[in-house]
Amino acid sequence: MKLADMSKQEQSSMYEELKQSYARFQARSLKLNMSRGKPSADQLALSQRLLDPLDNYRAEDGTDTLNYGLLEGIPEARRLFGELMDMPPEQIIVGGNSSLSLMYDAISRLFCFGFNGHTPWGRLDKVKFLCPSPGYDRHFTICEVFGIKMIPIAMGEDGPYMEEIENLVAKDASIKGIWCVPQYSNPDGITYSSQTVRRLGALQAAAPDFRIFWDNAYCVHHLNMSDHDAVDNIYTACREAGQEDLPYIFSSFSKISFPHGAISAMAASPANIAHTKKYLNAQTISYDKINQLRHARYFKNKAGVLAHMAKHAEILAPKFSMVLDLLEAELTPLGIGCWTQPKGGYFVSVFLPKGCAKRTVQLCKQAGVELTGAGAPYPYGNDPQDSNIRIAPSFPPLEELKQAMEIFCLCAKMAAIEALEAI
Amino acid sequence: MKLADMSKQEQSSMYEELKQSYARFQARSLKLNMSRGKPSADQLALSQRLLDPLDNYRAEDGTDTLNYGLLEGIPEARRLFGELMDMPPEQIIVGGNSSLSLMYDAISRLFCFGFNGHTPWGRLDKVKFLCPSPGYDRHFTICEVFGIKMIPIAMGEDGPYMEEIENLVAKDASIKGIWCVPQYSNPDGITYSSQTVRRLGALQAAAPDFRIFWDNAYCVHHLNMSDHDAVDNIYTACREAGQEDLPYIFSSFSKISFPHGAISAMAASPANIAHTKKYLNAQTISYDKINQLRHARYFKNKAGVLAHMAKHAEILAPKFSMVLDLLEAELTPLGIGCWTQPKGGYFVSVFLPKGCAKRTVQLCKQAGVELTGAGAPYPYGNDPQDSNIRIAPSFPPLEELKQAMEIFCLCAKMAAIEALEAI
Repeated sequence: MKLADMSKQEQSSMYEELKQSYARFQARSLKLNMSRGKPSADQLALSQRLLDPLDNYRAEDGTDTLNYGLLEGIPEARRLFGELMDMPPEQIIVGGNSSLSLMYDAISRLFCFGFNGHTPWGRLDKVKFLCPSPGYDRHFTICEVFGIKMIPIAMGEDGPYMEEIENLVAKDASIKGIWCVPQYSNPDGITYSSQTVRRLGALQAAAPDFRIFWDNAYCVHHLNMSDHDAVDNIYTACREAGQEDLPYIFSSFSKISFPHGAISAMAASPANIAHTKKYLNAQTISYDKINQLRHARYFKNKAGVLAHMAKHAEILAPKFSMVLDLLEAELTPLGIGCWTQPKGGYFVSVFLPKGCAKRTVQLCKQAGVELTGAGAPYPYGNDPQDSNIRIAPSFPPLEELKQAMEIFCLCAKMAAIEALEAI
Repeated sequence: MKLADMSKQEQSSMYEELKQSYARFQARSLKLNMSRGKPSADQLALSQRLLDPLDNYRAEDGTDTLNYGLLEGIPEARRLFGELMDMPPEQIIVGGNSSLSLMYDAISRLFCFGFNGHTPWGRLDKVKFLCPSPGYDRHFTICEVFGIKMIPIAMGEDGPYMEEIENLVAKDASIKGIWCVPQYSNPDGITYSSQTVRRLGALQAAAPDFRIFWDNAYCVHHLNMSDHDAVDNIYTACREAGQEDLPYIFSSFSKISFPHGAISAMAASPANIAHTKKYLNAQTISYDKINQLRHARYFKNKAGVLAHMAKHAEILAPKFSMVLDLLEAELTPLGIGCWTQPKGGYFVSVFLPKGCAKRTVQLCKQAGVELTGAGAPYPYGNDPQDSNIRIAPSFPPLEELKQAMEIFCLCAKMAAIEALEAI
C-alpha cells in the first residue's frame, strides 16, 4: 500500500516499527560511507601494474620525460586522449593529475586576462553561469569562489532544458558559461541527447565570449560494455554552427586508473588552445610527463581503455544493481521517491518526497551512514525541493553497501512519514 | 695585454684571427646548448630507483595515496619539506610537479580574490613588484601576464640593494611584492646575507598586503658539500619583526629528482595557509600523492636529500670549474668581463663589456651554441647595459660543454673588439 493511502494510524504504527529497527542499527555503531564517487580498493588494484617502472622514459618523439619541456604533453598521451575525446591530438593539452584544476584554471584565465581582447571577467560587474541541476558540486564551488552568479537549470531525460537555456543566453550578455557533464551526468546519470548537443552547439549567446564547460568525466565509464550510452561530439556541433570557440572539453583518467594520481586533458578550438598555452606558459614549464608516459604505455589506445573499463564495470555493476534493487523493494511499494537508472557513471540520484532529503541525510548520519550533504548537487547548496540525495555506491564493499542502503531506505521511510504528519 | 690597451691595429689583427677560428667552428655545424638550467642525463639517473614500485601505497596516517583526498599533502612529505625549509609541517602545503605553478597560483589568488578583505589586485589600477635583477626570467613572465609593473633592483654581494627596496616599499602602496631567489640566486649565484634577510623581514611596506615571494629553489644545491652557503629563515625574520604574513616560501624537488616529474611545496604563516587552502579547495581535490609518497620514501629526511645532492655535486662541480677556468684563461688576460663564482645553484652569470651581450649570443647561435637570450634575466628582457649572459653548464656532457665554452669565449672576444671599434 502507498504511504499516502495509509491512515494516520497505519502510518504511525509503521513509524514505530521503523524506529525500533533504527535503534538496533544505531546500537551497532556502524561507519559506512556512500558520500563521494571514489573507486573501491579492488578497482584501484586493476591499475597496479601501471606503477611498474618503464623500460625507458623517452617519449616517442625522443623527449626525455624525466626532464623539462613539452608544455602541451607528450605525443602519445595527446593521441590517446584524442581517441577518447574524438578530437585532433594537436587540439589537446594533456594536463596534470586533475581535470578540475584544468577547469578552474580555464575560468581563472578568462577572469584575469579575458579571451583575445574581451574584457576580463574579473573586471565586469556581473558574471553568470548556467548550472544544470542537480550537478557536480565542485563545479559550483568554482563559481562561488569567483563570485560567478549561478542560475539553476532543470534536467530532463535528454539533458538540461534547452529552451530555457536558449532564452536566457540570448538576452543576457552577463551569462558567460554553462557547466555540462554530458554523459552519465553527475549525479543523475543522464546522457545528453543528440538534439540537446546540437542545440547547445547552435546556442546564440549574447556574450561573445560565452563558453560551454564540457566535463566529459564519464565518457567510457559504462556499467555494461555492450549496452551503453554515447554522447555526440560538442566540438563538431559547435563548428557546424560556425562557433568552434564555444566549448572547452575536459577528460581525465581519475576514474580509469587512480583518482588524482592520473592524467587529465583539455581539448578546444585552435584559438582557445593558443590562448590557453600563452598563459599556461607563465604558469608552468610542463605537467608531469612521466605519468603521461606511464598511462600512454599502459593503456595504449581507446581499445585498451575500454578493455580496462570492462573490469571496472564488473566490480561496479553489482553495486549499482543492489542499490536499485533495494530502492525498488523498499520504497516503490510505499510510493515514496523516484530515482535514475544510469547505464554508467558513479551515482544514483534519488528524489524523495519534498522536504525529506535533509532529514534523511541526518537520520543516516546518526546511524553511522555518511551521505553527500543534501542540497550539495545544487548551486549554493540549495535544493528548492529538499528532495534530492546523491548515492555513491562505488567505494564500500558490497556487504557494507547493502547495510548502508538498508539504513538509507529505513531513514527515507521515516522522513517520509514525518513529512506527511507535518502536513 | 688588456684589450683596451691594444692599438687599433692589434685589435684588428686579433679580430681577423678570431674570425678564422670562428669560421672553422661554423664549418663543423655543431649543436650545443647552454641555455636552460636542466640536469644532465647522468644526474637524472641518480634518481632512477625512485621510479620503482612501492611495497604499499598507504601514507603513514593510513591514507590510500591511490585515491582522493589530503589537499595539503601526505604527512611524511610535509615533514620532509619541513626539514628542508626549516618550517613546521603544519604550515606547509605539498604541491604538484611545479613550484612555479604554486607561485603563479599564489599571485592569481591575490589577483582574483585578494587577501582576507584587501582589494583583489586585479581590481587595482596599478600593481608593482620589485625584481632583483638579473633574476629568474619565469618570475618576470608571471608579472608580465598579470600586467604587474616590474621595478628592477640591482644585486650586490649580499643580495638586492636593501636601501632602495626599503625606500620604495615605504612610499608606494602599489608595490605589492618582491621576487627573491635567496640562495645561489638565479643567475648570479648570490646568497642573501643575514643582514639582508633581517632587513627584508623588517620591511615597512605601505601596502598592507605586501608579499615576499621567497623562491628557495637551490636550498641544498651545493657544488661542494663541505663548503657551502646557507640562507637565514625569512619566516623567522618576518615573525621577529611582527609581520609573519609577509613571506610565501617555495621549494621543489625538480632539481633533486626529476624536473617537473617531482614534487613542490609552499610554506607560509597560518593565516596565509588558511587563505590558500580556502581557494585551493576549489581548484583541486588533491595533488598527486603517489609521487609525494615515492619522494618521501626514497629520500626519507634532509640527511637523505643531502647525501643525494652530494652525488649531483660530483657531476656538476667539474662542469662549473671548467666554465670558470676557461673564462679566466680566455677573458681575464684581455680584461673583458667579470663573472660570479657560485658555490651552488645552476648558473654562472657573466658580465661582458657594455653592449656585448646580444652580439655574443648572436655569434654563438650562428656557430651552433644556444645560450639564454641576452636580457632574459631582466624585467621585460631589458638589460640596460646589454652586458649580462647567463651560462647554464649542467646539461651538456663535459666534452660538449668545453667546446661550447671555447666558442663562447671566442664570440665574447669578437663582440668586445667590435664594441671598441664602434666607440
